[in-house]
Amino acid sequence: MNAITFISPVTEEIKLVEDRMREQADSAHPDLRAALEHLMKAGGKRIRPTLGLLVGNMLGAPLEKLVTLGAAVELLHTATLVHDDLIDGSLLRRGTPTLNARWAPPATVLTGDFIFARAAKLAAETDDLRLMNLFADTLSIIVNGELTQMFNSRGLVNRDNYYKRIYAKTASLFEMTSHAAAMVSPANDETIKCMREFGYQLGMAFQIVDDILDFTGDQTSVGKPIGSDLHNGLVTLPGIYYAEANPHDPDILSLANGGWTNHENMTRLVENIRASNSTQKAMQEAENYVDRAIACLENIQPCAERDALENLAKYIVDRKV
Amino acid sequence: MNAITFISPVTEEIKLVEDRMREQADSAHPDLRAALEHLMKAGGKRIRPTLGLLVGNMLGAPLEKLVTLGAAVELLHTATLVHDDLIDGSLLRRGTPTLNARWAPPATVLTGDFIFARAAKLAAETDDLRLMNLFADTLSIIVNGELTQMFNSRGLVNRDNYYKRIYAKTASLFEMTSHAAAMVSPANDETIKCMREFGYQLGMAFQIVDDILDFTGDQTSVGKPIGSDLHNGLVTLPGIYYAEANPHDPDILSLANGGWTNHENMTRLVENIRASNSTQKAMQEAENYVDRAIACLENIQPCAERDALENLAKYIVDRKV
Repeated sequence: MNAITFISPVTEEIKLVEDRMREQADSAHPDLRAALEHLMKAGGKRIRPTLGLLVGNMLGAPLEKLVTLGAAVELLHTATLVHDDLIDGSLLRRGTPTLNARWAPPATVLTGDFIFARAAKLAAETDDLRLMNLFADTLSIIVNGELTQMFNSRGLVNRDNYYKRIYAKTASLFEMTSHAAAMVSPANDETIKCMREFGYQLGMAFQIVDDILDFTGDQTSVGKPIGSDLHNGLVTLPGIYYAEANPHDPDILSLANGGWTNHENMTRLVENIRASNSTQKAMQEAENYVDRAIACLENIQPCAERDALENLAKYIVDRKV
Repeated sequence: MNAITFISPVTEEIKLVEDRMREQADSAHPDLRAALEHLMKAGGKRIRPTLGLLVGNMLGAPLEKLVTLGAAVELLHTATLVHDDLIDGSLLRRGTPTLNARWAPPATVLTGDFIFARAAKLAAETDDLRLMNLFADTLSIIVNGELTQMFNSRGLVNRDNYYKRIYAKTASLFEMTSHAAAMVSPANDETIKCMREFGYQLGMAFQIVDDILDFTGDQTSVGKPIGSDLHNGLVTLPGIYYAEANPHDPDILSLANGGWTNHENMTRLVENIRASNSTQKAMQEAENYVDRAIACLENIQPCAERDALENLAKYIVDRKV
């Protein structure tokens, strides 16, 4: 696949989403405003609000609701990152210092809580109970997934666990965003169902690619050390493919007994996975998810947003960061 | 005032609230279920759900909505306690080990997040957008208050800061509970406004008494060391009265320069405050709040719930834990 730079047709609308996000700290403590500003500057590509805007615009949803939804979803995502970085003790994300690299844990916990609170407030402001319910369910799925990861997933080489984990971590929020954007539009139930599925497939692909980039990415642009998942005991899809092809690899076998804490062995395992064809196999799987996502657009009338959603899906497997 | 044991006429309904709370972890990770069970056993007097049930029953609200509201409010309260104890490093609450006394901080952060998520889900299940908005606003007020306390309030002897702090910390949730319970009933706007005010006055009284008990309480039943607020740099109403009467007390003067970190001096200051009439003055103020709360019931027809609300208000200033 050739390099695709995803040019968003919703660039101006994303600015409205960002304004909406910033407004949430308007009456908050100045240090909290500064923290939110720091997080927003570090803030990635706004893939989730872009997804919501494209789906909603395509189906004729009111812009105001899509902006509110986009801000709610992106703040929810931001809050989970704040608590994740604290939990992992990460000091860098996308090459930028994390909040907990600058602040003490208590302030970081509360900042995450505040951002959750404002995300919930925005979700309530969509004035749509179904959306509010979806939002609360998704938050539960994400947090329960993180707890399961913490208690059960370390050192585990297991496909089923992996898919559940990336659903909870990433695909659930993509799914919810696409679903909610369709739900606030005049689309029929069949279309709403398709857009939910589109978000799900896209989110699964997104996380698989993230997990591949942990092995293959440029450390500067990914912003964390190569193979950091494995060093944290998390076996992702490339590792699973490698384990399936090399079931007797001693480093793989060591994982079940906490072997992931051995830095030297894990560095070797990361190198072996990189040298194998496991990342390519994982990428093929991500591309299959993208193909299934694009198939969900089949019955949508051709339009600029539909094209943009296709490009977004292709961009997801083609991105370098 | 004589000792009043508050006998709740909603004991059976509180059990429904507790069942509803427990259900929230049904599909969650087993360790999370165990954590919620531990928190519920440690769980206090369920004053907030009791308030909601009494107000709602009095005004003819549907029981199902009041149970959902009560569970949402109590879980929100529980989640803030979990993160608070983590932030303060508290190992005991009401004499029972806190979650962070048993678990590592990451698990404690996520458990709090999960309980927030389920509280939001319950709020959404009331199927009432106004209530959902109230809920999200209250969550923001609570968390912003905690951040302000962390950044600005330590060592500060200031009435205005104190009242704002206890509003954010406690009265906002009492206010929201009473307001929301009235809102889901067929009561008119005037009555809804009165019940909101009732919750506010009750909550202010409740926190003032909590702050008094930090000085006068029996350490075993309060479950934390005497004067712990002051040792943490938080000057509460008894300290403020003492400072007003003794503006040149060197320990009081030291607070502005971080003097609260000096354990010996603070132990002396706690003793001086206990020996003064400052806690009585603070109690008089709490009783004034209770009187104003009871005045809010003026236009309510006499009934068992109205009597119970009056008793609840009197119990709040008369409790020993």
